[in-house]
Amino acid sequence: MRYQKPKGTADILPGASEKWQFVETTARELFKTYQYKEIRTPMFENFEVFSRTSGDTSDIVTKEMYDFKDKGDRHIALRPEGTAGVVRAFVENKLFGPEFNKPYKVYYMGPMFRYERPQSGRQREFHQVGVEAFGSDSPVLDVEVIAMAIAFFKKLGVSDLKLSLNTLGDKESRDAYRKALIDYLEPHFDELSEDSQVRLHKNPLRVLDSKDEKDQKFVADAPAILDYLTDEAKAHFEAVKMQLDQLNIDYVVDSTMVRGLDYYNHTIFEVMTQSKSLGHGYTTICAGGRYNGLVEELGGPEVSGVGFGLGLERLLLLLEDQEVAMMSDDALDVYVVGIGDAANQMTLPIVQAIREAGFSSDRDYLDRKPKGQFKTADRLNAKYTLTIGESELESQTANLKSMATGEEVSVSLTDVKQHFKETLEQNFNK
Amino acid sequence: MRYQKPKGTADILPGASEKWQFVETTARELFKTYQYKEIRTPMFENFEVFSRTSGDTSDIVTKEMYDFKDKGDRHIALRPEGTAGVVRAFVENKLFGPEFNKPYKVYYMGPMFRYERPQSGRQREFHQVGVEAFGSDSPVLDVEVIAMAIAFFKKLGVSDLKLSLNTLGDKESRDAYRKALIDYLEPHFDELSEDSQVRLHKNPLRVLDSKDEKDQKFVADAPAILDYLTDEAKAHFEAVKMQLDQLNIDYVVDSTMVRGLDYYNHTIFEVMTQSKSLGHGYTTICAGGRYNGLVEELGGPEVSGVGFGLGLERLLLLLEDQEVAMMSDDALDVYVVGIGDAANQMTLPIVQAIREAGFSSDRDYLDRKPKGQFKTADRLNAKYTLTIGESELESQTANLKSMATGEEVSVSLTDVKQHFKETLEQNFNK
Repeated sequence: MRYQKPKGTADILPGASEKWQFVETTARELFKTYQYKEIRTPMFENFEVFSRTSGDTSDIVTKEMYDFKDKGDRHIALRPEGTAGVVRAFVENKLFGPEFNKPYKVYYMGPMFRYERPQSGRQREFHQVGVEAFGSDSPVLDVEVIAMAIAFFKKLGVSDLKLSLNTLGDKESRDAYRKALIDYLEPHFDELSEDSQVRLHKNPLRVLDSKDEKDQKFVADAPAILDYLTDEAKAHFEAVKMQLDQLNIDYVVDSTMVRGLDYYNHTIFEVMTQSKSLGHGYTTICAGGRYNGLVEELGGPEVSGVGFGLGLERLLLLLEDQEVAMMSDDALDVYVVGIGDAANQMTLPIVQAIREAGFSSDRDYLDRKPKGQFKTADRLNAKYTLTIGESELESQTANLKSMATGEEVSVSLTDVKQHFKETLEQNFNK
Repeated sequence: MRYQKPKGTADILPGASEKWQFVETTARELFKTYQYKEIRTPMFENFEVFSRTSGDTSDIVTKEMYDFKDKGDRHIALRPEGTAGVVRAFVENKLFGPEFNKPYKVYYMGPMFRYERPQSGRQREFHQVGVEAFGSDSPVLDVEVIAMAIAFFKKLGVSDLKLSLNTLGDKESRDAYRKALIDYLEPHFDELSEDSQVRLHKNPLRVLDSKDEKDQKFVADAPAILDYLTDEAKAHFEAVKMQLDQLNIDYVVDSTMVRGLDYYNHTIFEVMTQSKSLGHGYTTICAGGRYNGLVEELGGPEVSGVGFGLGLERLLLLLEDQEVAMMSDDALDVYVVGIGDAANQMTLPIVQAIREAGFSSDRDYLDRKPKGQFKTADRLNAKYTLTIGESELESQTANLKSMATGEEVSVSLTDVKQHFKETLEQNFNK
């Protein structure tokens, strides 16, 4: 029998894992300057947490949830996205309390899951990074979140970014717009796609999001939400645009943009870029917005939120395509070569001493002859080799050779740790 | 309705997540000096991967697996431990091939799952760190792995470590020992616990591992594996002990120690410590050993492995109990105070400039009055406040005040980024 990873999952192996670490470390460092702290929620939640927050008509709930019954007959779902779990934790742990700073700013990163139909080619286990900020209605916070997303991609070296912006207004704006949209679409009911016919009265905004050609021809002339905003919603949107201008962040307002999830209001945005690795033309690499009702939806008080999420698999494809250098400095510092049995028995303490001095070191574990050991050192791109044979054991010294310059020095094996720390530091600083 | 995290899971919130980051970063840095690279395998595997590797009589398979049927009626299990997935990936990705360095050394960290009976108080989602090294039979590699575990705890500041060591020998040693053990236990069959009666002929070594009082009285006088080792197995064990001596790592040989999983052979070990947070007396905080048949078990060639695993929840309890300082340096560098509407509209670009210079910065998002903003700065432990009012706007300067010394300087708002970089660096280096 052959054992294989489950359909739709991937192994991230050495050689690739360094790139993931690079992206994650970049995110952590950036988010720290914005004072967002990490939150980690479980890999799975009770099904209702997601069905409640994603909206009944969303694809996540209707088609893609990776849900199952556990042994206690509970309806469990592996998390399809990060926000719902974070909001659940925010409410359950009462993070809205007066003892916590407002806005309460968090980020998450990790695996997400959806039970995709296999033919779609998308992964069942994938990875997202996201941020959420709770407890402020200020449009300046929307802009901070957008600016952080842009800064993240810039820090990674992604060029050619496009920011798409829209508002879904407040409840009053949205109700007026829904009505206008239904009035506009209803005469064409029979021409709409099946999905859109179902959604028309439940959530007509989702029709604008449809990828179906049948629907798309109606999108261009559809009424725009911008014409239905209340004064307050308009003021919020104007403030967002003004602050973006102040930060010299370019944007285009796309009034047909809605978001797949039902819980957004006011500002929504997508960061897009062009890369043949992601498909034709500009494609979305990060999406977010404000969701003022979600905390209440999960049983909390009236606390607003704003955030974004982005997929790491797509980001890595993009970075590879743009040939961004994802440096990993885990090159080997010192390979210790032992010549003869007696010397070989002595090399582990030397290797350990070098490691304790903070440098990476390795030795042979396959009884290789000296020639094979030098070859291994070469293959591992060792910066130095340290050779110990019988005569070196006797004199308690060893030969340290720079692989780059060929330069050799003799170093004492007594008080190895301190010695290597100094010797190596001097050599590395040359 | 109240929404709660699933039974047996935990939220890791800001304030705690920094400690997790500290432990994980410490591990990554240490493992790097040993040249172990990160591998990430899926959160779930086909059930057979775990049932095959854990052994039919193990508690994991018989009682604790968090398994379910997916929507395609596949038997899936959330991973109960890290080794099986890593070995599956090692085989499936042919990491034993000639193009890879030997030993092939990897580490993993992340969530693991088991469907515990709720009364046991153990978590259904928990976290482990572990390492695996494939492709070398050298006893020196066993010692490297042990030394790395010890170095990890020492680096974290855990004192009072005890290393328990044993060998399970090779197949021939083990067969002889099994027979001796069955011969010894069989006359007492009726006095054994129910579990042990089931295991006696399947896997008599597990009887030694039993926590049941009925069984424990027979353990003390049971034959010791050390008396049944082949010459080769004995030589391997002697070499391990000799290398440990050379590294000045203390150990005690505990010939009654076996491991819960069936796949170990030769060296097995446990790192133990005393802490009232973990229970009475010495308790195990890390366990590992050599498993020479596991790669074949999952369809690979004859490649040996050695590794260890440790639980992060227990480790964090221990570190908190030993009052290890788990520093997080995400204190706020600069809080920017805006006085008046005009100034408040100008503060985000200033905050952004400071962040771009690599420092953490924040501002108000709740329309707080200046007094409230200063209070927030205080509460956030800001190192500096930067105050901008109408007059500062006019003069394009702002007041930078050290919260520690009360010292104030005026800084220019033009070319803010460069200026702050220099000003702050000077101030921080004082």
